[in-house]
Amino acid sequence: MSDGGPTTFDGRANSVELIKSATDGPGDLSAITTLREAGYELRDVLAVVGKTEGNGCVNDFSRTLGSHAWRGVLGDEAITVMSGGTEGVLSPHVTLLIRTREQDASTGLIGAIAVTGAIAKPDLGRRAQVTAVADAVIQAMMDARLATENVHLVLVKCPLLTSDDVTDCVAAGRPSITVDTYESMARSRAASALGVALALGECADADVQAALDDSRELWSSVASVSSGAELTGCHVLVLGTSSEGGRLRMCHAVMTDALDAAPISAMLKEVENAFGRVVQVFAKAEASPDGHIRGHRHTMLTDSDVHSTRHARAAVGGLIAGLVGDPAIYVSGGAENQGPPGGGPIAFVYEVPVVPRSSNVYSSK
Amino acid sequence: MSDGGPTTFDGRANSVELIKSATDGPGDLSAITTLREAGYELRDVLAVVGKTEGNGCVNDFSRTLGSHAWRGVLGDEAITVMSGGTEGVLSPHVTLLIRTREQDASTGLIGAIAVTGAIAKPDLGRRAQVTAVADAVIQAMMDARLATENVHLVLVKCPLLTSDDVTDCVAAGRPSITVDTYESMARSRAASALGVALALGECADADVQAALDDSRELWSSVASVSSGAELTGCHVLVLGTSSEGGRLRMCHAVMTDALDAAPISAMLKEVENAFGRVVQVFAKAEASPDGHIRGHRHTMLTDSDVHSTRHARAAVGGLIAGLVGDPAIYVSGGAENQGPPGGGPIAFVYEVPVVPRSSNVYSSK
Amino acid sequence: MSDGGPTTFDGRANSVELIKSATDGPGDLSAITTLREAGYELRDVLAVVGKTEGNGCVNDFSRTLGSHAWRGVLGDEAITVMSGGTEGVLSPHVTLLIRTREQDASTGLIGAIAVTGAIAKPDLGRRAQVTAVADAVIQAMMDARLATENVHLVLVKCPLLTSDDVTDCVAAGRPSITVDTYESMARSRAASALGVALALGECADADVQAALDDSRELWSSVASVSSGAELTGCHVLVLGTSSEGGRLRMCHAVMTDALDAAPISAMLKEVENAFGRVVQVFAKAEASPDGHIRGHRHTMLTDSDVHSTRHARAAVGGLIAGLVGDPAIYVSGGAENQGPPGGGPIAFVYEVPVVPRSSNVYSSK
Amino acid sequence: MSDGGPTTFDGRANSVELIKSATDGPGDLSAITTLREAGYELRDVLAVVGKTEGNGCVNDFSRTLGSHAWRGVLGDEAITVMSGGTEGVLSPHVTLLIRTREQDASTGLIGAIAVTGAIAKPDLGRRAQVTAVADAVIQAMMDARLATENVHLVLVKCPLLTSDDVTDCVAAGRPSITVDTYESMARSRAASALGVALALGECADADVQAALDDSRELWSSVASVSSGAELTGCHVLVLGTSSEGGRLRMCHAVMTDALDAAPISAMLKEVENAFGRVVQVFAKAEASPDGHIRGHRHTMLTDSDVHSTRHARAAVGGLIAGLVGDPAIYVSGGAENQGPPGGGPIAFVYEVPVVPRSSNVYSSK
Repeated sequence: MSDGGPTTFDGRANSVELIKSATDGPGDLSAITTLREAGYELRDVLAVVGKTEGNGCVNDFSRTLGSHAWRGVLGDEAITVMSGGTEGVLSPHVTLLIRTREQDASTGLIGAIAVTGAIAKPDLGRRAQVTAVADAVIQAMMDARLATENVHLVLVKCPLLTSDDVTDCVAAGRPSITVDTYESMARSRAASALGVALALGECADADVQAALDDSRELWSSVASVSSGAELTGCHVLVLGTSSEGGRLRMCHAVMTDALDAAPISAMLKEVENAFGRVVQVFAKAEASPDGHIRGHRHTMLTDSDVHSTRHARAAVGGLIAGLVGDPAIYVSGGAENQGPPGGGPIAFVYEVPVVPRSSNVYSSK
Repeated sequence: MSDGGPTTFDGRANSVELIKSATDGPGDLSAITTLREAGYELRDVLAVVGKTEGNGCVNDFSRTLGSHAWRGVLGDEAITVMSGGTEGVLSPHVTLLIRTREQDASTGLIGAIAVTGAIAKPDLGRRAQVTAVADAVIQAMMDARLATENVHLVLVKCPLLTSDDVTDCVAAGRPSITVDTYESMARSRAASALGVALALGECADADVQAALDDSRELWSSVASVSSGAELTGCHVLVLGTSSEGGRLRMCHAVMTDALDAAPISAMLKEVENAFGRVVQVFAKAEASPDGHIRGHRHTMLTDSDVHSTRHARAAVGGLIAGLVGDPAIYVSGGAENQGPPGGGPIAFVYEVPVVPRSSNVYSSK
Repeated sequence: MSDGGPTTFDGRANSVELIKSATDGPGDLSAITTLREAGYELRDVLAVVGKTEGNGCVNDFSRTLGSHAWRGVLGDEAITVMSGGTEGVLSPHVTLLIRTREQDASTGLIGAIAVTGAIAKPDLGRRAQVTAVADAVIQAMMDARLATENVHLVLVKCPLLTSDDVTDCVAAGRPSITVDTYESMARSRAASALGVALALGECADADVQAALDDSRELWSSVASVSSGAELTGCHVLVLGTSSEGGRLRMCHAVMTDALDAAPISAMLKEVENAFGRVVQVFAKAEASPDGHIRGHRHTMLTDSDVHSTRHARAAVGGLIAGLVGDPAIYVSGGAENQGPPGGGPIAFVYEVPVVPRSSNVYSSK
Repeated sequence: MSDGGPTTFDGRANSVELIKSATDGPGDLSAITTLREAGYELRDVLAVVGKTEGNGCVNDFSRTLGSHAWRGVLGDEAITVMSGGTEGVLSPHVTLLIRTREQDASTGLIGAIAVTGAIAKPDLGRRAQVTAVADAVIQAMMDARLATENVHLVLVKCPLLTSDDVTDCVAAGRPSITVDTYESMARSRAASALGVALALGECADADVQAALDDSRELWSSVASVSSGAELTGCHVLVLGTSSEGGRLRMCHAVMTDALDAAPISAMLKEVENAFGRVVQVFAKAEASPDGHIRGHRHTMLTDSDVHSTRHARAAVGGLIAGLVGDPAIYVSGGAENQGPPGGGPIAFVYEVPVVPRSSNVYSSK
């Protein structure tokens, strides 16, 4: 597949370190200092995952600025996933995923990336994008030798349509899937999420087209997709855990709606039981598409001043940040085919105390 | 005091019932059906407290529409407190506070209202407004024979300045406290909150002016103030509990910041311990004025597309609604002098099972 | 036709007077004073056409408030057309169309109204709405004995879809034309505009369905349609001129794009040549759907903070108001099938000096 | 003056060429191709003046992105003036001011730049900023040997306050002039505009402080100031005309309010009389601070969803673009002390046919 197929990079899948760093603006690269203090170099960076402070919608240039700034210093083989929107308490920051050195012990956290080729604009939101993302996810998992059951998160950054794209598609005789630039973001997220679901065996190939056409019933429990104008292909980051364990662990769950505090509490309990602390949270949020949450009407879909993705990030971000006690978390809006309608996947990376090997012998755990 | 002084109504303070009813729009009066099904009439209504679905800012006509619709059916002695903004998961609804019949047992919930006269526009946000609100609060408490320690909530609805008001003040030679209409909402809330604090002995008279000028360090732990263009004076509703107890109880606390889940959990524990269920929540939320929450930068104050009050309602509303499991709650934005900077008061009304008196004898509780 | 068919009122079509009155808020009824000063009563009012100061989009409660306030005082036979959005220089106001008394001379301005029944939600934006509006327009013209060539403006107010409507349609097994509430406004406008075009012979019946599906090439040069949540059927107001002439005249033209000052200048020239003055302007505006104006990219369709209808009203309103020298004009956003794509119809009502008949003999004009 | 004083560059003042180029995004550098096709290199660029498609307010990262992209390719001695906001019909573009080669004939357009040092945050909007800008303007005029009467435009780009800046000022014991980040943009524009007025003798030194405190009555007729987060000092570009004439000419006027089409028409007449064509327009726009335009209420200052600067650009941009027939013009919002309250300066650069010298002899013109 020449267009939309995955490009992968050997040898980068493996143990990864995670560094989270506050930003004072979308172009802030001060995380590099933190990176170096931790003994790493820019060439070690696998991925930069950022929450930037724009509106997270079509004309969010904070994403582009963040992407532009990082691309200027990163190697060609690293990817950037910039997700716009730090509504409410959410705090702008970047998360660096870094390849650890061969001589070092595994962190227990496994990461791998892949990128698709450019998605032709008429293909956006359609089957070709699903396939391209699925191929990329599979390639990344193979690189990282990650079994499906050890995958806790697949982050995807995918393109959207601008007014010019829509016009170009018409001119080329292949109309785009929508003429509404904001809706194109949702369509692109849906196709990418279905690609993840397909790669992980969460859905059957035969059901994909129906899901693209209409249904929200088919979904991935680990996909977290964000769309933006700053790229033409899809960037994929797969995160999971080593079966040998290590200092860093992951867990994930699915919030069934925007009020669903239970899985968050359960995951916090798991962390607490392991004497750990949450290092980073990755969550998706969206306005329930039927306009109701547990029977109560919400107004996110009828607010013509503020898009529903902004509302959803603010509300779900407020809930998670309050429970975890940290507002510098990755909460992304628009959860089409990522968790059930109105809900979304949530994943934790957490750190546990490293117990000296000898003491393990008597560990009852 | 002819201008800005309180007008009160005898005999209405006392046991009140609380009915919460979803609305399908700001002018929806279907709560009247629920009211009648519960055996009450419109003339029994003490106050209608609504969350309407506008932006909660200067040009929020959903508040005006709600107020207009209810004023058309309510008696002159009832007040309306319409608070705009149901961002995120928050669900539009009205809460009716209803005087119970003399022959009925007390609910345990005590309510009283008062209104000030019109606040002259140059007085808005200034000492005269503080005094007017304080007088009204005291009068309402006296009417209801509510001791300070039994007061859990003082809701105030107060006016704001429009462009025309600003111009009129200049023309009258008494410039308004600000020329920024959005900021006038904050100034009006601050003055009203200080009025509540003064009435409840939470601050000294001598410190009020300094607080008006500058300080956020002086605050009430039970005030919940909302401003709007739909009225010219202040509406005051005092809610508390009877020392004899009853089916309905209240508790309140202060969130120290927008992430502060602990007091909410503690209050939920109190309700659970009493085998109760939360009937309604009243909370205030705001963006921390120093731009940070627990050391993390937030972007609510630098977002020129969405005002910070909207962000704060969405985030704090998301947290409370998720913990309580109910999005039809009263969360109001802009907590100047209501709780500490960046935090805000939160009050629960909850219902406990009524145990027949005779069975109490053997109660192990 | 029981559903969506026109209801008409005999005898009201005829000479109408036009009064324009500033409002200090959407619920301001002070125009009634002006009405009475001119010697009329509320029962004489045929239609109230308002520009209210909301966002003009789905959650614009200023329209509802305006409509609610006027409905409270108007007779059942009068209609209201509230159009939200006074962006930029546009100034909130109402235009009253008033039936003149039989004994008075004709003003020269002819008006007639009609209303359709409720548009079933699954019919919104579809053929049934086109037919209902066309029938209503024809009925109004017949009532007024207005020939097609004397019609200069057909104002239509039509419903939209809310989240609940979308859900209800799905539940009823007849999915609505779109699930996007903001887009439903455009679909409703398009169907209404095609109804006007059909009634006036501007398009063929056979071409309507294709136009509904896709095309913007079919359009009316006199339709001005605005959608809102405050009504369930369509309100139609037809304005034209008497062939006998009079004090009030009309002219209309079509702006081919948002920069098209030429037809405005030409109409102003016509008014000037008649020694007249412009009394009111009715114009439609929209963002060019291909994202360009005369080859230059515009950003109205990619702005996720402000909807394109708001941009278009501000820009075109700025141009017309500047040329006419009056910001209290009726500029409405979203011109689907009203004028060519990116453009829109514009109509003037203007007043000319009344020359005593006898003096005409010696008039040099 | 070490802080806030001007830094100037010898020899760059002089004949300048002007190239206008559409952009397909804030980071689009395709204007470089146009530049080279015209025979110039990046080192010849004196200034890049851009209209970028953000909100033009505090969190407008389109400005930063544009500035960041151009800074990466421009020499140290060139300045960038990025003005956010292409509301309505306005079209994103950049204007390059280019030093012509010594051997070439003068274009007739004279340009010069200067930059101030960083404005200390507590100085923003205060006297020190006025002085710094005034010094820079004078230095640029001296460099360019431009007499005051030949100056038609002084573009200034100046900093604003972020939440962090406000906090830092308090911590440093020198509170900033405002705690409202959006208002800080207005304060910075006002101080810069007064700096221009001072430099050009449009106001007296003794009146500056009063104007800073309160008054809008003191204003420059050629200043055009825009604030942004992307710089810490002020960038100044002075444009004027050579007394010897040339292919490029300028004229300027002041719009007295947002409806004031007359000066635009008069300037177009001047261009027409010279058989010229408008090359670029530079205009300022703002919402009339008293909430009225020619006695009609506007709603720009009470719209809590869209800031007034956005409204003003859309409306005034619509008027100018319609009259000039070009939407790729520089219209900037917020005209504090730039033209009278509610109005603003407007300048044209236009090109006239070059008549061979010999033919001049017989020219009757």
